[in-house]
Amino acid sequence: MSGNTFGALFRVTTFGESHGPVIGCVIDGCPPGLPLAAADIQTDLDRRKPGTSRHVTQRRETDEVEILSGVFDAETTGAPIAFLIHNRDQRSRDYGNIADAFRPGHADYAWWQKYGVRDYRGGGRASARETAARVAAGAVARKWLAERFGIVIRGYLAQLGDLPIAFESWDEVDRNPFFAPNAEVVPGLEARLDELRRAGDSSGARINIVAGNMPVGWGEPVFDRLDADIAHAMMSINAVKGIEIGAGFAAVSQSGSQHGDELTPDGFLSNHAGGVLGGVSTGQDILVSLAVKPTPSIRIARRTIDRAGAPMTIGTEGRHDPCVGIRAVPVAEAMLALTLIDHALRWRAQCGDVHTITPHIAGLSPEGWQTTPPPRRK
Amino acid sequence: MSGNTFGALFRVTTFGESHGPVIGCVIDGCPPGLPLAAADIQTDLDRRKPGTSRHVTQRRETDEVEILSGVFDAETTGAPIAFLIHNRDQRSRDYGNIADAFRPGHADYAWWQKYGVRDYRGGGRASARETAARVAAGAVARKWLAERFGIVIRGYLAQLGDLPIAFESWDEVDRNPFFAPNAEVVPGLEARLDELRRAGDSSGARINIVAGNMPVGWGEPVFDRLDADIAHAMMSINAVKGIEIGAGFAAVSQSGSQHGDELTPDGFLSNHAGGVLGGVSTGQDILVSLAVKPTPSIRIARRTIDRAGAPMTIGTEGRHDPCVGIRAVPVAEAMLALTLIDHALRWRAQCGDVHTITPHIAGLSPEGWQTTPPPRRK
Amino acid sequence: MSGNTFGALFRVTTFGESHGPVIGCVIDGCPPGLPLAAADIQTDLDRRKPGTSRHVTQRRETDEVEILSGVFDAETTGAPIAFLIHNRDQRSRDYGNIADAFRPGHADYAWWQKYGVRDYRGGGRASARETAARVAAGAVARKWLAERFGIVIRGYLAQLGDLPIAFESWDEVDRNPFFAPNAEVVPGLEARLDELRRAGDSSGARINIVAGNMPVGWGEPVFDRLDADIAHAMMSINAVKGIEIGAGFAAVSQSGSQHGDELTPDGFLSNHAGGVLGGVSTGQDILVSLAVKPTPSIRIARRTIDRAGAPMTIGTEGRHDPCVGIRAVPVAEAMLALTLIDHALRWRAQCGDVHTITPHIAGLSPEGWQTTPPPRRK
Amino acid sequence: MSGNTFGALFRVTTFGESHGPVIGCVIDGCPPGLPLAAADIQTDLDRRKPGTSRHVTQRRETDEVEILSGVFDAETTGAPIAFLIHNRDQRSRDYGNIADAFRPGHADYAWWQKYGVRDYRGGGRASARETAARVAAGAVARKWLAERFGIVIRGYLAQLGDLPIAFESWDEVDRNPFFAPNAEVVPGLEARLDELRRAGDSSGARINIVAGNMPVGWGEPVFDRLDADIAHAMMSINAVKGIEIGAGFAAVSQSGSQHGDELTPDGFLSNHAGGVLGGVSTGQDILVSLAVKPTPSIRIARRTIDRAGAPMTIGTEGRHDPCVGIRAVPVAEAMLALTLIDHALRWRAQCGDVHTITPHIAGLSPEGWQTTPPPRRK
Repeated sequence: MSGNTFGALFRVTTFGESHGPVIGCVIDGCPPGLPLAAADIQTDLDRRKPGTSRHVTQRRETDEVEILSGVFDAETTGAPIAFLIHNRDQRSRDYGNIADAFRPGHADYAWWQKYGVRDYRGGGRASARETAARVAAGAVARKWLAERFGIVIRGYLAQLGDLPIAFESWDEVDRNPFFAPNAEVVPGLEARLDELRRAGDSSGARINIVAGNMPVGWGEPVFDRLDADIAHAMMSINAVKGIEIGAGFAAVSQSGSQHGDELTPDGFLSNHAGGVLGGVSTGQDILVSLAVKPTPSIRIARRTIDRAGAPMTIGTEGRHDPCVGIRAVPVAEAMLALTLIDHALRWRAQCGDVHTITPHIAGLSPEGWQTTPPPRRK
Repeated sequence: MSGNTFGALFRVTTFGESHGPVIGCVIDGCPPGLPLAAADIQTDLDRRKPGTSRHVTQRRETDEVEILSGVFDAETTGAPIAFLIHNRDQRSRDYGNIADAFRPGHADYAWWQKYGVRDYRGGGRASARETAARVAAGAVARKWLAERFGIVIRGYLAQLGDLPIAFESWDEVDRNPFFAPNAEVVPGLEARLDELRRAGDSSGARINIVAGNMPVGWGEPVFDRLDADIAHAMMSINAVKGIEIGAGFAAVSQSGSQHGDELTPDGFLSNHAGGVLGGVSTGQDILVSLAVKPTPSIRIARRTIDRAGAPMTIGTEGRHDPCVGIRAVPVAEAMLALTLIDHALRWRAQCGDVHTITPHIAGLSPEGWQTTPPPRRK
Repeated sequence: MSGNTFGALFRVTTFGESHGPVIGCVIDGCPPGLPLAAADIQTDLDRRKPGTSRHVTQRRETDEVEILSGVFDAETTGAPIAFLIHNRDQRSRDYGNIADAFRPGHADYAWWQKYGVRDYRGGGRASARETAARVAAGAVARKWLAERFGIVIRGYLAQLGDLPIAFESWDEVDRNPFFAPNAEVVPGLEARLDELRRAGDSSGARINIVAGNMPVGWGEPVFDRLDADIAHAMMSINAVKGIEIGAGFAAVSQSGSQHGDELTPDGFLSNHAGGVLGGVSTGQDILVSLAVKPTPSIRIARRTIDRAGAPMTIGTEGRHDPCVGIRAVPVAEAMLALTLIDHALRWRAQCGDVHTITPHIAGLSPEGWQTTPPPRRK
Repeated sequence: MSGNTFGALFRVTTFGESHGPVIGCVIDGCPPGLPLAAADIQTDLDRRKPGTSRHVTQRRETDEVEILSGVFDAETTGAPIAFLIHNRDQRSRDYGNIADAFRPGHADYAWWQKYGVRDYRGGGRASARETAARVAAGAVARKWLAERFGIVIRGYLAQLGDLPIAFESWDEVDRNPFFAPNAEVVPGLEARLDELRRAGDSSGARINIVAGNMPVGWGEPVFDRLDADIAHAMMSINAVKGIEIGAGFAAVSQSGSQHGDELTPDGFLSNHAGGVLGGVSTGQDILVSLAVKPTPSIRIARRTIDRAGAPMTIGTEGRHDPCVGIRAVPVAEAMLALTLIDHALRWRAQCGDVHTITPHIAGLSPEGWQTTPPPRRK
């Protein structure tokens, strides 16, 4: 159990290194009878794919997914679903420096001391390339959640460095290479990224993820609360350093009479909880916000030590994203989908036959607020 | 698997309701040969205990722990260790209102819809009283971590509402009822809490937790990263809404050349990573910061619905903490201890025989910085 | 994860030593809304209880179960259910010999070498007394299986030493202290056990367990097959050395045309499979047969070594069952119930909404064959 | 968690169908630093490979393994190791009959009712072809166990139908296509299998598996006993219907004074326990015996029903093993290896630092008995 599996019932195991032949995953526990084709997965993979604009890594990958098992006559069979994504662009190069030294901000030093052996090529297993497998698995989860429950999972870039990005519209998100929900900020983002690239530096980001049309009752108290598993899922994404559910750190300076979301027959009157109370979904939107640290692979030379412990300096040439937070949007959406499907199945196992006389309420439906982000995020 | 177990190898299962006869837990997987007596656990329990000052709930509990199994001749045997903590003060009262309605900010509505049955007395299983069992289990973990590795886990209140609390000294933390690391702020905190109590309202808080003298190499990429499991652990604590590791949300506006911690033969030159890179401990201090929402049980009447869905208002009388964040300090320390011991055992299973020629480095040892909180937290 | 938990979704964790204050367990994952009182559990506990006849251990235990949590208003709430059974008769005695030496056929030597510390009093955690907790948990499982699916789980003694016991009637099983399904063999069993007691020796046994009214579709290929999990469950009972499902070892000398159970619209024509094909229940009776070794605690002196490795002889005085196989019947029934409920929940999670046009078939219903044991067992 | 993963710490997840493009597996948790090449695995795969004699299925497969990840510079890195084995000989044929009907003795009916969708081609996921992936994973486990502990795992055919096979020599086992430990029985086995093939029928078998040079202390009481996990592992192999550890069902008619293995400074005097007491390894050989049912795919026509529930008859043409027990030998060895490595890591996690003054004893070493099968098996 060295940690490459996510989920209790919908279990995703990923494998593969950045410069090995493939990245892949196996999903165990997918319900049978879900229509599934490679095209369903490809859409999500394409959103995460490198090389789509000059603002992300220029590594050339088609990221075509191959389904090896678990699907028959275009339907899932309940057997494990294995995916492969071939690594086409493992550009041959001299790794000498990286092989022997530890890049600041990278897994290098800690993994070396842990394992005593290290596939240093392109970061090996620590590379963000591993997240392609998560996106593929997440696409299956997302499809099932949409078909059975109508759940919609979406994300966007909310801040890049010190540039906040006001939420304007979901429609805008897929029209620019930044997942920015606002057309006006796009020129500013382009300028900032060009500047970072010239400087050989990188930037952090905040991204927000929302799941709408949620059912009530998902999440397992007390340790496997829905929000705890979401936190686990999100913090398992490379470079994430902070997580908020609902009000998040704003709750620190709220009073109880401000924070607690009142209930009415028409729905909750606010969503400071972010859709989870007592670890269980309330039916409101799930609201998650993430801090993504700046890409550690930068050209600027920095101090480090080599394997023998001697001091040296190191800068990383190569085709790195100046802001890994951007391409983290589809990855975080996938991780939320994987968390939700897992809890859907856990709910069904223990409580799938529970009924109460109490009506299900959600957010303030008249405005269609349910699947839009809350005011705080703007 | 309805979520009442924490940990993969050092597994803690808690049980019990706020107004049932007991709160308890079972630890499975504790290494044998650890000297253990009830007194080792009582110290930690006493720090979390209600009724210790007028600023926390006035429920009267002795919180004496009883060890039922797993210890023989004052040593752990490797068998499961069961603890009981009796609930002495289940004050008899009229729950009528709470039984039939859903308190805003509480688990009530979501749990009722999930389970169709609800032990409403004092919050039942959703009560923060459940965390007493976590503290008891955490005390065992903490003792083993200290004896085998010298690890020190400490926490403090960093902000109450909009009052930031500058870190002055660890010595101060246990000298006031707020776990405040600074004597000067104490009168201000007292005034604030008295005011909240009078107003029948409550306040959020930020707390910081630090683990010092960490070994390198704990944490399992890619999903069970040390930081991901810490996030899971922390978000599983009642009322936590946000988590930061190291720089946390400050990383959003950092550049790569600011954020990435440089390495030297004398140690890392900063700790924006919070002691974890690539999901694996680096040997630096683990730095965790939490947002705790304001107590939802307040006297101020608020809108809600009853079980039939009809509108009503509800205020919560009773002996509630005006700021649950305060007593969350020992709970969060316990959860960090439980996460660390679990990863210590996981590390030992897979990698316990790995050795490298590379020296272990940590923080800037000359100043004794290693076990003190980083500047950012002040 | 030192192995004191059984089940993936209906998780039972047991704790307690033979001569500690209690034996207990925690069930996590029980569906909510199941009516449950201590009396439901007591019936099963009483069947396993020591001291019920001169043919089992004379330890005096009331084995009264106390429910600590997870039940409110006489219904399960979905929260963990904790049970305690107090050890009343920890007769004070001199353990000197046992403390320092390893009894042949016992866990003593292996556990000592593993843990380096040992609660030798009455076998500590290795005592069959631990199985009381399994029976208590099994009673909950059995009740849910009966209420939701009409499943009936029963067992009987099929052989004692070299005395085979022909199956006559389920009605007889609870009318004698041996769980023998046949009144005529009872005098012979009494004589044999009296003889063993006089000789200070013990005997092995075969027991058969049957689950009737099974649904089709429970069990998870390929590793968590229903029969694999049953084998796990049964071999985890103290003293079990062999397991058969359906034809068992008789299948070795069968041909394919004899073994494979034919299907007809009226049901399967035989049950060599024992109710499981491809790891999944077929709807026929689950048939399990177990070999239970003779009690290792016997008066006859035998060779062993002490803790320093020096040779010595040891005989065990005390109140031991001359045939542990007898009281293993309710324990094995409980373990089958625990395995089935776990797979019921797993089935519900992944496949609970699957429907086919194919009718469910089972055994030859006209004769009521479905819940009686197959010919081979007689 | 639909059951395609084996192991708690050394976790093997298999995937793939008989007539899909590949069979494969992912190993998560392999210790780093183990030298590993495809050739290490190929040896074991070749022993299980179809088409090696006229007595096993004539399906033509090269069964060449491809390592996709987790190995760098010929060493394991601690990252997940993925294997693929391509299915080359998915002979195109008419599956009409099998697609619509349920073969007696097969998974067909139960899986169809469970999943509502079925990859019927060659048995799909229920095919014994899945076991190739287990053998590949087992080869890694076996290598580590041999290198770190000197453990030797071997198996042989002990009975075919009603022909018992006396154990003569381990050397003989790999000299004939039956894994028979005795040259004299080979002509008789050939005659029997030719006869079965002509008759269109099949035969059951008994196989024995032995692990020698075992350390003391592996296995986790009370549910995850080493023998319980071995039983789980073995019963998860297609067609296994019975399992014995040590004396197995012979223990039913033994007395305590016969069964309990006496200890001396030179070792245990017998091995009725089969190397496990109280669920923990004693250091003696692990002895496991399995009943394998006759291949259900036979030419002889038998009664069944179709998907609509209507009666029909079915015979299975094709290239099936007349005795699946033969090729189950390397599979059972692999499953024992996987169980042992998992417990090796679990032992290391909790108890790896335990030392006692008591010498380790095993079997009667002068005769080299330790790694030979016990008398009972002959």
